[in-house]
Amino acid sequence: MVLKVAARAKVPPFIVMDVMSQAAAREAAGERVLHLEVGQPGTGLPRGAAERLAALIETERLGYTVALGIPELRARISRHYREAHGADVPPERILVTTGSSAAFQLAFLGAFAAGDRVGLAAPGYPAYRHILKALGVEPVIFPVGADSRYQPTVPVLEAAGERLDGLIVASPSNPTGTVVPPDEMRALAAHCEREGIRLISDEIYHGIVYGEPAVSAAGLTETAIVINSFSKYYSMTGWRLGWLVAPPDMIRPLECLAQNMFISAPTLSQYAGLFAMDCEDELQANVARYAANRALLLEHLPAAGFDRLAPADGAFYLYADVSRQTNDSQDFCRRMLMETGVATTPGLDFDAEQGCRFVRFSFAGATEDMAEAAKRLKAWSAASGS
Amino acid sequence: MVLKVAARAKVPPFIVMDVMSQAAAREAAGERVLHLEVGQPGTGLPRGAAERLAALIETERLGYTVALGIPELRARISRHYREAHGADVPPERILVTTGSSAAFQLAFLGAFAAGDRVGLAAPGYPAYRHILKALGVEPVIFPVGADSRYQPTVPVLEAAGERLDGLIVASPSNPTGTVVPPDEMRALAAHCEREGIRLISDEIYHGIVYGEPAVSAAGLTETAIVINSFSKYYSMTGWRLGWLVAPPDMIRPLECLAQNMFISAPTLSQYAGLFAMDCEDELQANVARYAANRALLLEHLPAAGFDRLAPADGAFYLYADVSRQTNDSQDFCRRMLMETGVATTPGLDFDAEQGCRFVRFSFAGATEDMAEAAKRLKAWSAASGS
Repeated sequence: MVLKVAARAKVPPFIVMDVMSQAAAREAAGERVLHLEVGQPGTGLPRGAAERLAALIETERLGYTVALGIPELRARISRHYREAHGADVPPERILVTTGSSAAFQLAFLGAFAAGDRVGLAAPGYPAYRHILKALGVEPVIFPVGADSRYQPTVPVLEAAGERLDGLIVASPSNPTGTVVPPDEMRALAAHCEREGIRLISDEIYHGIVYGEPAVSAAGLTETAIVINSFSKYYSMTGWRLGWLVAPPDMIRPLECLAQNMFISAPTLSQYAGLFAMDCEDELQANVARYAANRALLLEHLPAAGFDRLAPADGAFYLYADVSRQTNDSQDFCRRMLMETGVATTPGLDFDAEQGCRFVRFSFAGATEDMAEAAKRLKAWSAASGS
Repeated sequence: MVLKVAARAKVPPFIVMDVMSQAAAREAAGERVLHLEVGQPGTGLPRGAAERLAALIETERLGYTVALGIPELRARISRHYREAHGADVPPERILVTTGSSAAFQLAFLGAFAAGDRVGLAAPGYPAYRHILKALGVEPVIFPVGADSRYQPTVPVLEAAGERLDGLIVASPSNPTGTVVPPDEMRALAAHCEREGIRLISDEIYHGIVYGEPAVSAAGLTETAIVINSFSKYYSMTGWRLGWLVAPPDMIRPLECLAQNMFISAPTLSQYAGLFAMDCEDELQANVARYAANRALLLEHLPAAGFDRLAPADGAFYLYADVSRQTNDSQDFCRRMLMETGVATTPGLDFDAEQGCRFVRFSFAGATEDMAEAAKRLKAWSAASGS
C-alpha cells in the first residue's frame, strides 16, 4: 500500500538553495565565487566568547537545561533590554529558544489556532508563511513597496480591511533592511491591541543598523511576542540560539510547549550566547564592516544598473528593483552567477508576486568581496549595454 | 482587548518537573538527593570527542549547515546501519535533526494531516501525544501491560480495531525498557504496510540493551520513518542532535520543511556527534555502568517493596507497579522524595490512566547513587511496614 505524504509538508524550497548549489559547482571547478546570496555573517562566534567556551567542553557535562533556558542568560537578556532600550523586561518573560526558528514555532502554536489569519508583508522572510501554513494558520499577505518603506503600516492594514488574528512585523526587515520608526511601531502596537491582533515582532536584525537604533516592541507593549536571535548581531548562526519575550499570560503555556517540542536549547550554545553578550567591541567591529560594505555597494551598484534600492536602514541586505533588466529574477540571478561569479538571491524567495522583479544582495561578507563583486557587476552591465 | 492563547498550546507540563523543583529545593537546603528521576546519562560527551571538538570552536566559523546535515555525519550514520544492523541505509535517506524532538515534529508534519489518527502505547513518552495534539493529529492510545510486554503488538492492534494513519513504536521503550523482538517488529512493519499505516519507529535508546540488540525498522522496511538520537547511547543530551531515516519519497518534503522550521541542526553538535561515533570504548563503558546499576536495583528494589517491574531489556529505566503501595503515584513520589531523598518519576507522566499506580526509576546516574538509593528505600519500606 502506498503511504501518503501529508499535503502540509509540501512547502516550497528556498530558491536561493539552487543558486547555492550552482555556486558550489563553480567553486569546485576552481572559480572564485562572491557570496552575496548568503544571509549570515562572514564571521563566527566572537573570539572572546570562543576562548571561554572551549574550556567548558572538556569540564562540563552539558546535559539538558530547563526548558526556559539557563537563568544567567535570561537575566543577561533582561539586562540587555534595560541597557539598549530602557525597557523593563523581567527574566521571567524571557524564553531561550533553539534559534529564532523554534521561537517562531512556539509563538505561532501558542498564539494561533488552526484556521486563524496572520498578516505579514511581502516581501518578507519566506519561512514565516511556510511555518504558518504547516501549522494550519492562514498567512494574509500585504504587498508593500517603496511608498510604505516596505513595511505594513497602520494605513496599509486599514486600507486592506482584512480580519486578522495576528500580525508579523520585522524591523529591520529581511530582505529590504527597512526599520519601522518608533512612532510607527507604537501605532502598530496600539492598533493590534485595539483590534485584538497578536503582534509578533521579529527583531532578529536588531543591533545591525546604520542610523537610529530600531525600537523594540518589548518596550511598548506587554501583549506582543518579541522574537530575537543570536545569529545576526552576535554572529552565531550555526549555534542555533534565539529567544522570545512572551506576554505574562503566555510564558507558562509556551514553557510547556517548549518542554515537549524542544526540551531545551543547545546547552553549550546558551553559554556561548551569554559570553558573546560581553564582546561588544568585536560585535561593533562587525557592524562597522557591514557599514563599510553597505557604503561601498551604495556607491558602486547604481553604476552597474542597480539604482533602485530599498532604504537599507539595517540588517545586511540591499533589495534591488531590477524590473528594467528582467521580469524573471531567478533566471537573472542564474545568469549573473554564470557570467560574473556573483551569487545573489532572487526576490521570488521573499515575494511570490513581485519578487520576479527584485534581487537581494547580502553584504554580510568580507569587504574585499564586495569591492570585487561591484567591479565585476559594473563590467557586466557595461558589456550588456544596460 | 484581551488576546487569546491558542487552546492547542495548553499541553500539560511534565509532572516530573515538579519533582525536580522539589528535589532542587532540598538540595539547596543541603540535603543529598539521589536523582533517579532524570532521563539522561550522568556522563557528558565522550572525552575523545570533546578533545577534538575544542579546537574547532576557535578555528571554524560554524555557520549554518545544509538542512539535511553535514555529509560526513550522514555518511557515518549510514555506515553505522551497515555495521550494527547489516542494513543498507544510504546517506541520502538520512536527515540530521536538532535532537529527536525536531525529528518527531518533522515526521508528524510530513506524514500526517490534521485530523489523522496515530496509535501509540500507554505507558509511553508523553511528548509524542502532546506534539501530535499541538499539530492537530489525534493520538489513539493503546493501553499495554505485562501481557504484551508493554508493547503494541499486532494482536493488540487487531483486537482494538481502530482505524489508524500512523503508529509509533518505541524499542527500547521509555518508561518500561522493553525491546520489541525481531519477529514482532517484522510483523508490525508488515501489518503497517498492509494496512496503509505509517510506522514511526523510535529507536533513541538503541545501543543501550542488556540482552540481544534491538532490531532497527530501517533494516526491515523502506516505508517507516526511523528516529534516533545522540542523547542516550552517545551521552549528548544538551547538544540537541538526532537523526531520522526517511522513506525515499519523503526525504525531499522533509528537507524543505526542515529548511523552513529549523534551518539546520547545531553545527558544532554535528561535529560532536561525528566524533562521538568513534568513541566506542567510552560508550560501551557507559553501557557497562548502566548494566551494573540495573543489576544492583534488580537485586535490591524487591526487598524495598518494588518487586513488580517491567522487563528492562534496554534503556536505563525500571518501571515499577506500585499499586500495592498507592493509587496516587504523584503523591507517592513526593513522599518518597521528602522521606528518603530519592527522586523518581510518577507513572502519570507516561500513562494518564494507569500511571497513578506506577513509578519510573532511572538508573542512568552513578552506581554509588543507585546503591545509596536502594539502601534508603529498603529502610523506608521497613519503617513503613509495607
